[in-house]
Amino acid sequence: MITPDSLSLNTATVTRQWNLAQAIDGCLRHGLGGIAPWRDKLHEAGVDNGARMIAESGLTVSGLCRGGWFTAEGALTPAVLDDNRRAVDEAVAIGAACLVMVVGGLPPGSRDLPAARAIVAEGLARTLEYARKLDMPIAIEPLHPMYAADRACVNTTAQALDLCDQLGEGIGVALDLYHIWWDPDIRAQIQRAGKARLLAFHLCDWLVPTTDMLSDRGMMGDGIIDIASYRAMVEDSGFDGLNEVEIFSAENWWKRDPDDVLSEIVRRAEQC
Amino acid sequence: MITPDSLSLNTATVTRQWNLAQAIDGCLRHGLGGIAPWRDKLHEAGVDNGARMIAESGLTVSGLCRGGWFTAEGALTPAVLDDNRRAVDEAVAIGAACLVMVVGGLPPGSRDLPAARAIVAEGLARTLEYARKLDMPIAIEPLHPMYAADRACVNTTAQALDLCDQLGEGIGVALDLYHIWWDPDIRAQIQRAGKARLLAFHLCDWLVPTTDMLSDRGMMGDGIIDIASYRAMVEDSGFDGLNEVEIFSAENWWKRDPDDVLSEIVRRAEQC
Repeated sequence: MITPDSLSLNTATVTRQWNLAQAIDGCLRHGLGGIAPWRDKLHEAGVDNGARMIAESGLTVSGLCRGGWFTAEGALTPAVLDDNRRAVDEAVAIGAACLVMVVGGLPPGSRDLPAARAIVAEGLARTLEYARKLDMPIAIEPLHPMYAADRACVNTTAQALDLCDQLGEGIGVALDLYHIWWDPDIRAQIQRAGKARLLAFHLCDWLVPTTDMLSDRGMMGDGIIDIASYRAMVEDSGFDGLNEVEIFSAENWWKRDPDDVLSEIVRRAEQC
Repeated sequence: MITPDSLSLNTATVTRQWNLAQAIDGCLRHGLGGIAPWRDKLHEAGVDNGARMIAESGLTVSGLCRGGWFTAEGALTPAVLDDNRRAVDEAVAIGAACLVMVVGGLPPGSRDLPAARAIVAEGLARTLEYARKLDMPIAIEPLHPMYAADRACVNTTAQALDLCDQLGEGIGVALDLYHIWWDPDIRAQIQRAGKARLLAFHLCDWLVPTTDMLSDRGMMGDGIIDIASYRAMVEDSGFDGLNEVEIFSAENWWKRDPDDVLSEIVRRAEQC
């Protein structure tokens, strides 16, 4: 059972319905313990203003989504690196537990996956260098292999942890059940990660059938992920952060009254 | 460059257009070296008649698709095991290089992925016992993780090879680029497989965007898979079988004149 105060709302879950101020109010109204803003919501509110609102709310910030996309311009251009430094600054401004990294897929026009992965490793190293000075943990989010081409070429927890091993202190993983539930090696990799590198844990569900590769994620309980078993794994490894709920759902939850969405999140989490 | 005589046509590529006899004629007309029938096409022709037609054609049979689905009834029922023995018999009847196994996903109503994987391991063991007597190699096809729930809970080459290690002689892998291209560990796993366990190699491409999770595979060259690099890996490991082309494409290739499809396969393969 997950209690409301151990839940965090990732703003993507209500991205079509609420701005940051409304999401903060919603979290408070439903007794959630935290929030995880996407940068678009934070920018819309203004970073200083958003940071002030969050601080005044008393909500924990389980993460800022997201830095990364190191491959977007085919190389680590100043624009890409600057944007990642700004993301670190923003994560610091809102007191986030970590900056979540969606690393980017193949560069435009490229079929060279090893080269993309090399750009990502270098981009993470450069951003980490900056983040360490500001004491902001970097969380690599391995994305489901179906996003390897166009969103993130880090696709398993093992691969993310190999990068962490290579890069040293200050970097860990953000594990989202949607991306990792299928992994036959997940138990061993969560143990390998350990408390220090388990920086975020995201909940949702995998629907059968899944009708859209991007925006058909399920509410906990509507799909086939044995959520409790994965929670036990991260908790056994010492993870004591919030359970962040991130559901992309264009045809269902994004069309509903957001207060109903939060009520349902609270209700479903209690059954996990 | 892949020459026509080193290509095999998986009948799924023209499943909407051709029956087995037409597919055999098509392969001969376009100079392909082999064919890989799906069982529905073979049953439609009659196994004995289909086997005779294939034998007379002189085409190599790169595989029979498919056995498996061990989890379909939630347990290894006699029906499931019988069907797999029949699949072995049919593979023997047509002189297939291997029987390809799509192992099945979660049992109906289940969220227990480890239990599904245990059923699969036992089902493979039981089928292998029978296949060994008939000298028919069993090829586990790891399917893309996006099919873990509903089609196959063996999702990486490493996982498939772990099963092979556990089960011993007579079993290997069928590697389909659609399923494995994203895997950060693929080079090492192909080396680990070695010639003896690389039983089949399937070509197609991953389209960006992919608009349907089941039937939007691409023709070689239309997507982002660096096909030549993976071919080099399997060849470096000693694979000398045919390059089997298997494209599920409801909105494109399944709607075209099948002779045009084969012409295009031959043309594209020459560029790989």
